[in-house]
Amino acid sequence: MKQMAQVIDREIDMWFQNSAAQIQASVTLQAAEYQLTLTKPPGALGALEYVAITLAAHQGILKPALDKIFISVFAADHGVAKQGVSAFPQAVTAEMIKNFASGGAAISVLAKQLSAKFEVVNLGTVFHVPVHEKIIDAHIANGTADFCVQSAMSQDQLQQALAHGQQSAIRAKQSGSQLFIGGEMGIGNTTSASALASAYLNIPAINMVGCGTGLDESKLPHKAQVIEQALALHISRDPMDILKNLGGFEIVALVGAYIQCAQQGITVLVDGFISSTAALMAVAINESIRPWLMFSHESTEPGHRPILSELNALPLLNIGMRLGEGSGAAVAVSLMQSAVVLHNQMATFEGAGVSEKEE
Amino acid sequence: MKQMAQVIDREIDMWFQNSAAQIQASVTLQAAEYQLTLTKPPGALGALEYVAITLAAHQGILKPALDKIFISVFAADHGVAKQGVSAFPQAVTAEMIKNFASGGAAISVLAKQLSAKFEVVNLGTVFHVPVHEKIIDAHIANGTADFCVQSAMSQDQLQQALAHGQQSAIRAKQSGSQLFIGGEMGIGNTTSASALASAYLNIPAINMVGCGTGLDESKLPHKAQVIEQALALHISRDPMDILKNLGGFEIVALVGAYIQCAQQGITVLVDGFISSTAALMAVAINESIRPWLMFSHESTEPGHRPILSELNALPLLNIGMRLGEGSGAAVAVSLMQSAVVLHNQMATFEGAGVSEKEE
Repeated sequence: MKQMAQVIDREIDMWFQNSAAQIQASVTLQAAEYQLTLTKPPGALGALEYVAITLAAHQGILKPALDKIFISVFAADHGVAKQGVSAFPQAVTAEMIKNFASGGAAISVLAKQLSAKFEVVNLGTVFHVPVHEKIIDAHIANGTADFCVQSAMSQDQLQQALAHGQQSAIRAKQSGSQLFIGGEMGIGNTTSASALASAYLNIPAINMVGCGTGLDESKLPHKAQVIEQALALHISRDPMDILKNLGGFEIVALVGAYIQCAQQGITVLVDGFISSTAALMAVAINESIRPWLMFSHESTEPGHRPILSELNALPLLNIGMRLGEGSGAAVAVSLMQSAVVLHNQMATFEGAGVSEKEE
Repeated sequence: MKQMAQVIDREIDMWFQNSAAQIQASVTLQAAEYQLTLTKPPGALGALEYVAITLAAHQGILKPALDKIFISVFAADHGVAKQGVSAFPQAVTAEMIKNFASGGAAISVLAKQLSAKFEVVNLGTVFHVPVHEKIIDAHIANGTADFCVQSAMSQDQLQQALAHGQQSAIRAKQSGSQLFIGGEMGIGNTTSASALASAYLNIPAINMVGCGTGLDESKLPHKAQVIEQALALHISRDPMDILKNLGGFEIVALVGAYIQCAQQGITVLVDGFISSTAALMAVAINESIRPWLMFSHESTEPGHRPILSELNALPLLNIGMRLGEGSGAAVAVSLMQSAVVLHNQMATFEGAGVSEKEE
């Protein structure tokens, strides 16, 4: 019996290592060839052609669809917030969860604009959050521990957070979604993300920190020093250990969601700096998921670029956004929808009787 | 009587010099202050905040709308096409006009996606274009003359082309449009645009030419040399003379449309390289229109950057597009619509009970 329980535990523990769904290379090729028949110079739609071909490949059909979007915003508090690394008080995490649910936050407005399925997953806050139909209670603890003095979370909490993200991806699959956007909220979470990326990429903290929600620039050295202190304390460079030691519940949930989406064959659209850090860690844990990740925008957080570079990612937008919540990804969806309608509805040279290139 | 006719002629001739509509600075300020009350860190929505504030100012109301889009595609042939400067045969201009009208071109698909008012203005092609309800017959001549040997058009043709653009802007106003997009089509028109910008900005042609619809790179020096030959022939640097000598009917129509939009207080969303050249010339003719121009994307045509720089323009997108037709502008509209719904629908800190920044 004990042995059986261990086997089950082990299976539960290691779900995130299972391979991502296969992408049909033949559909990629077919979609790329079809693009060449459309009445435009080859390549003239730039990144929109890549978007259409990628979605076709992900969906395994020549003409993909992009009308069912699933947005999960993961929220949690951070022990490191007590180190004075944020411009906003910690109460804002719980207040913003309410704002997400009641429709007033940026991501709520964008989700409505996209007619997306929208949920808020509360993984644990310091301040109280009332019950609301749009808020999933996924409470792990009242925020993480301060990673300057101990691991941000226990091994069990790490598994819980991963599983909560996994559950969001399963709900996305069940509702027939073609695209998953994960958002995040948590006062102090740019500090956690910078710490994760610094540790994994072995980049000095000072090069990975930015102003987050609007920290005064004079406080950046302090933010970096807080991270360096944590990096000195937590020396393991194993991705799972890094997540446990320096992560936030919402960032770990994003990791779980991204991996499960890829395993189920759902396209992921990654948001900004914090989400990209989660993507970095997810790929570090399970490299097979990388082809399922698309990137929406480049944030003004200086740490975003090295992460995008490591992931060989070219985001669609660079418009100075730095809000998080999944907002940059939600804004980019309409561009991807344009890519899809162009791919699906444009006439071919033959069909329209348009002469082709002479050379 | 003769004197009277001259006065009328003179008035008709000089309409493009009339001042643009006034923008209410008080609304700009009001909208910018309102942005600061929304539940996000100040500036966190990047360029989307600028878009919302600009549209509010243009429309003279705190909460602008962006659901009525007007798209005119101006098409014409170019005498310079006979110099072997394009990858596609000249028949494509007329063929694409038909494709615009029948809904198969990129801009047609995007116009439908946006539920935009859509018209094609045929200013004159070498090949025959059949009658179609979506095609406005604005025939000036069967294309321009080859500007390597003479002026591209006469003074009268210049005025006609400007007036046709003006008429599109008037139709946009009559239909209550909040945004005007001008597209262009004409085999050879990147050569005309490069020549215009080279002449006006005094930049060597070799730095202003690109591959257009897909000219082989080895032919770029030839394309530049064709332009240098024209620049040596047409020495006036007066903007109207430059347009007459080196323009295309569709580019001049864009100039007229942009000016009239600004005079009527309609926001213009400029497309790519050729449209930006028209914007450059329009501002050269009438500087007061500049505040009414917004810029959608940066093209891969190398000449686009110096033009954007001269206009102090920061486009929203840089996704490798180079199709023209107004397609890049049409793709950017959905981003602007996101900016508007965020501005109009997000909760305020006070309304949502969210704590503000501590510093």
